[in-house]
Amino acid sequence: MYRPEIKVVDCSIRDGGLINKWQFSDELVRETYKACAAAGVDYMEIGYKASAGMFDPKEYGKWRFCRDEDIKRLLDKIELKSKISCMVDIGRVNDEDILPAKNSVFSMIRVACYVKEVDKGIALAQKIMDKGYEATINIMAVSTNLEKDINEVLEQLDKSQVPVVYVVDSYGSMFQEDITFLIKKYQKFMPNKTLGIHCHNNRQLAFSNTIQAVIDGANLLDASVFGIGRGAGNCCLELLLGFLKNPKYHVRPVFKLIEDYYLPLREKIEWGYLIPYAITGMLNEHPRSAMALRDSADKDKYTDFYDQLTTPETTVKSRH
Amino acid sequence: MYRPEIKVVDCSIRDGGLINKWQFSDELVRETYKACAAAGVDYMEIGYKASAGMFDPKEYGKWRFCRDEDIKRLLDKIELKSKISCMVDIGRVNDEDILPAKNSVFSMIRVACYVKEVDKGIALAQKIMDKGYEATINIMAVSTNLEKDINEVLEQLDKSQVPVVYVVDSYGSMFQEDITFLIKKYQKFMPNKTLGIHCHNNRQLAFSNTIQAVIDGANLLDASVFGIGRGAGNCCLELLLGFLKNPKYHVRPVFKLIEDYYLPLREKIEWGYLIPYAITGMLNEHPRSAMALRDSADKDKYTDFYDQLTTPETTVKSRH
Repeated sequence: MYRPEIKVVDCSIRDGGLINKWQFSDELVRETYKACAAAGVDYMEIGYKASAGMFDPKEYGKWRFCRDEDIKRLLDKIELKSKISCMVDIGRVNDEDILPAKNSVFSMIRVACYVKEVDKGIALAQKIMDKGYEATINIMAVSTNLEKDINEVLEQLDKSQVPVVYVVDSYGSMFQEDITFLIKKYQKFMPNKTLGIHCHNNRQLAFSNTIQAVIDGANLLDASVFGIGRGAGNCCLELLLGFLKNPKYHVRPVFKLIEDYYLPLREKIEWGYLIPYAITGMLNEHPRSAMALRDSADKDKYTDFYDQLTTPETTVKSRH
Repeated sequence: MYRPEIKVVDCSIRDGGLINKWQFSDELVRETYKACAAAGVDYMEIGYKASAGMFDPKEYGKWRFCRDEDIKRLLDKIELKSKISCMVDIGRVNDEDILPAKNSVFSMIRVACYVKEVDKGIALAQKIMDKGYEATINIMAVSTNLEKDINEVLEQLDKSQVPVVYVVDSYGSMFQEDITFLIKKYQKFMPNKTLGIHCHNNRQLAFSNTIQAVIDGANLLDASVFGIGRGAGNCCLELLLGFLKNPKYHVRPVFKLIEDYYLPLREKIEWGYLIPYAITGMLNEHPRSAMALRDSADKDKYTDFYDQLTTPETTVKSRH
């Protein structure tokens, strides 16, 4: 697939940090940036921006805060070929933590919000744009909403100045037909917006759903190195670059990065296709129950886990 | 997706045996059969049928030969709820090894052949049908042929009495658009045949390509437990059963089987998404070079491997 408008966003550190509280070595983050730049990746999303008081810095690594000075130090003397982005959650970042874009290393700040928070999301994205950044709204967990509520927020978004809206398969529960349904809906309600796609790999569909979104017209594509990301992880960057025919992309630097850094990392922290994540994907649920299982002695007791999530009388206990 | 004509073929032992020369314990094979039967799987393909002299029985396990008496012994006293099938290769099975169907445990025998062997495949399938079995032709490595040659064999197959023809993505190189292209082509040339789909998972697309084939009209669906199969493996049976809405299918017995048998097996033999298999998939090549790499001390030297396969002057050496 070749379409000049297509842009790739690497979110290895941002989404991968959900596994290890962003406790990555500087070297790994720097090498990830360098590989992305060499691969022609358009944006590297380096973490979440959050205010200092929001999280304990002893527990959370610096990519949970994404202070400009940390990134400048990290990427000192490296040619910034890929644009740098970060993500913000509603209510976790103060105005003063977002510098004017002209003083910042960030080009893009993406706002993650649920359907019910889209009003707040639009307001935050507007502030971000007013400071000179590119902005997106990533509507999380869209698969758990009634269609009337989705339509309502798409109408609101259409009226906003936010230029990019993401279809996000937070739970890895969607099939290609669901992706097509949502992309077509987003296009219908917001004919002038650029659409993005962010998929999770619970059912081994993150890459194919990303392809489907490209076929349907999405132009901002999220992926991560070796699929790193919470739970089952994301669309593999190496697979996506092997699919896109745009000559600016090169897959080899990503293979090298996996070989040197992500294979050893995968020995220390876990992500990828595992049965408990497939189960929460099938059930269209947040992976938190599966993550808790994988963190326990019962991590491979798949049938007990499946029974807990599917037997009505135990559902409340196990889900909350 | 629900369509009453859909049937699922488990090929865990047959395709998985390509990893370990069919050296599975009787217990694992028996428990796989029992789980398939409990899950409502329509066919279990238990191995390849080959004549005794073709392979050394000290090196190859009994599912490389699939003698009726071995299977009768294995499944003694088990209710045969799933039909039993096996696969045959051209030139590796003698007439006398195929009993009349009425004396056999097999319901279906599938013929695997390349485009250039389809004449021989049709002749063998006809013999199999004459003995009273269901038969299919699985055209391997179709992605490496010129379209005129594919069209020619589809015309031949249309004239044959073989009722089922498979689209096979042997190298895990196809995207959903390729699946649609081939299914539509097979339908156009053979409007009265049932179509099957068999995918490999080199690019994490085996499940989504199987879904795409279902959407396009394929009704015989191959899958394997936890994706076991040569190289990157196949479409995961547990994912496929979680997708199909036919009430006869139950995914829980497959989770139990993975927990008890396939997770320990995966500790001993390797299959699944690994970069060398992704690379051969991207290059539309047989995985043998990747399998050789994984069997060597250089198993994680991805960039060297990629360079070997993509640098013209080393290509001949490394590919053969």
